[in-house]
Amino acid sequence: MTTADTPVRIAVDAMGGDNAPGSVVAGAVEAVREGGVQIMLVGDPTIVQAELAKHDVEELPIAVIPSEGVIVEGEPPAMALRQKPRASILVSTGMIKQGHADASVTMGSTGGAMAAAAVVLGLSEGVDRPALGGPVIGVSPNTFVIDLGTNVDCRPSQLLSFAVIGDVFARRFWGIERPRIALLSVGEEAGKGNRQVRDTTELLEKSGLNFIGNLEGNDLAAGKAEVVVCDGFVGNIVMKLTEGLGKALSAHIGKSLKGKLSDSELDAATQDMHDLNNIVQTHGGGPIFGVNGISVVGHGAGDSTAVRRAIETARHTYDIDFIPKLNEEMAEVFARVQED
Amino acid sequence: MTTADTPVRIAVDAMGGDNAPGSVVAGAVEAVREGGVQIMLVGDPTIVQAELAKHDVEELPIAVIPSEGVIVEGEPPAMALRQKPRASILVSTGMIKQGHADASVTMGSTGGAMAAAAVVLGLSEGVDRPALGGPVIGVSPNTFVIDLGTNVDCRPSQLLSFAVIGDVFARRFWGIERPRIALLSVGEEAGKGNRQVRDTTELLEKSGLNFIGNLEGNDLAAGKAEVVVCDGFVGNIVMKLTEGLGKALSAHIGKSLKGKLSDSELDAATQDMHDLNNIVQTHGGGPIFGVNGISVVGHGAGDSTAVRRAIETARHTYDIDFIPKLNEEMAEVFARVQED
Repeated sequence: MTTADTPVRIAVDAMGGDNAPGSVVAGAVEAVREGGVQIMLVGDPTIVQAELAKHDVEELPIAVIPSEGVIVEGEPPAMALRQKPRASILVSTGMIKQGHADASVTMGSTGGAMAAAAVVLGLSEGVDRPALGGPVIGVSPNTFVIDLGTNVDCRPSQLLSFAVIGDVFARRFWGIERPRIALLSVGEEAGKGNRQVRDTTELLEKSGLNFIGNLEGNDLAAGKAEVVVCDGFVGNIVMKLTEGLGKALSAHIGKSLKGKLSDSELDAATQDMHDLNNIVQTHGGGPIFGVNGISVVGHGAGDSTAVRRAIETARHTYDIDFIPKLNEEMAEVFARVQED
Repeated sequence: MTTADTPVRIAVDAMGGDNAPGSVVAGAVEAVREGGVQIMLVGDPTIVQAELAKHDVEELPIAVIPSEGVIVEGEPPAMALRQKPRASILVSTGMIKQGHADASVTMGSTGGAMAAAAVVLGLSEGVDRPALGGPVIGVSPNTFVIDLGTNVDCRPSQLLSFAVIGDVFARRFWGIERPRIALLSVGEEAGKGNRQVRDTTELLEKSGLNFIGNLEGNDLAAGKAEVVVCDGFVGNIVMKLTEGLGKALSAHIGKSLKGKLSDSELDAATQDMHDLNNIVQTHGGGPIFGVNGISVVGHGAGDSTAVRRAIETARHTYDIDFIPKLNEEMAEVFARVQED
């Protein structure tokens, strides 16, 4: 926890993302000007200093920390980590481990950031691999879906850990006292679903969480639960399908309503179709879940505003004590399901 | 195969569906008037005769076949089949088995129809359970997705059998010479995906089918393949999610564009949002796949037009020799993958 006097120390990977380092440095400067944070920009010092020189930063709490190399989107993360031990994402994540930073932020490779977080920060008790989650469907902005793609073959205990993550997220980020937790399945009746769902149901019923049972695909668009748990294979397909529908429907609206709406109304309607389907692009990133520290991944294509928001998310995640609370609840829930 | 002289004999479950028997009988009469079929209406004779009396059917090839009871949506099919051995769906499916009908049609319980078809007609070689498939996403009307919910825990050989069904469907129904077959997964690169996808990839590569690799969720809305294979857990979530989005987006458009479009334009735009998402409601039913006979299930809420269309689908499925061609290709493909 922090107070107004002690700014949150955030290590920012200045080299990651499509618009790095320009937008990253600009976004970091914006965040510092808003107050409450001090920033360590991790990257090639010459390049980062040249970017910083474009801003008036003399009095601001911004330091430059040298790194060598960057892990780009699409590189196999494990190999990249070995080949580039001084890569910006490893150095920025390492600063948390060494006690020099409270959180880290990158707009770079999600796979790289997750691998770095798992290796450097370690996993929370009960977690096998880091997870990604968030509200992904625009028409259900208050439904947190987890996992979105990292964990494709899940044991029931992994799905239980996702439920705990979602519960703590909805409580701490959204202030909901007893978030409704559901399993994504193919029928609402208990006992419907695949083997994974049936086995996980047993665990969730003993978990002490506010487990409301199964939801079906159509319920995802109806906001029937704050947390919807699924394996990363299913979650990724849900996320990507809505992304694809958003594009297709937006294009369709653009054509079919052209001439019937004013230009500005048409722009608003097509944008709506994007945003009501997939909101990952709009909302942009969030913390990696299941690791022992705060590592926020923003959207690779994000501009300086997206960088500033990712930094704010990192600060907020720290302010609300997310990691300690998550570890606490994870231990409690796993103890509870193992009781009998 | 049939000629113009020998009408296709279709057993119609007169008791199944939300609007039975009224709409079912009316739709059957419409179908007979269109020509090319003779109809056996299976149901409670008194009730069915009373419905028939509302139409001028004296000269038409329509017979009434008695049955007792009906299996309704939501009843556990296996138990219902045992408890109601003379239920309309069992009698109508049985007429194929006994050589009195070439195909059967129901607007009733999908689960009941599938169970009846599996038990009475038997499964195609290589098939473990009947499957459902069809174009489910409105923006991709030429993408056949299979399975949609019956097979929730699939071995790779089951997914292979879905690929064969899709291939034969796209070739015989759509006239596409070499349909593109894809596996739904979480990354386009070979090797990406869960265990099931990786194991199925090996089989598909040896299958002789036009296997184009993995597609991701967003590709589903982009018409990148004629056939997309997934297990029924995933397929059902895809189908239902698009259904839910169709409803939500349609409602949203109705509100956000009210006053900006004329009433008729607004109606068209909201209808569009339904149809571009999930088209199962619109398109209504199709044959059950993987059984040794033609059993077509129409949409439970369908009107007489939907019944007539379902009867046409049954006739067409018979005319194109779908079942023999499917059995043939299934045997060939399974022999091919077992070669080495």
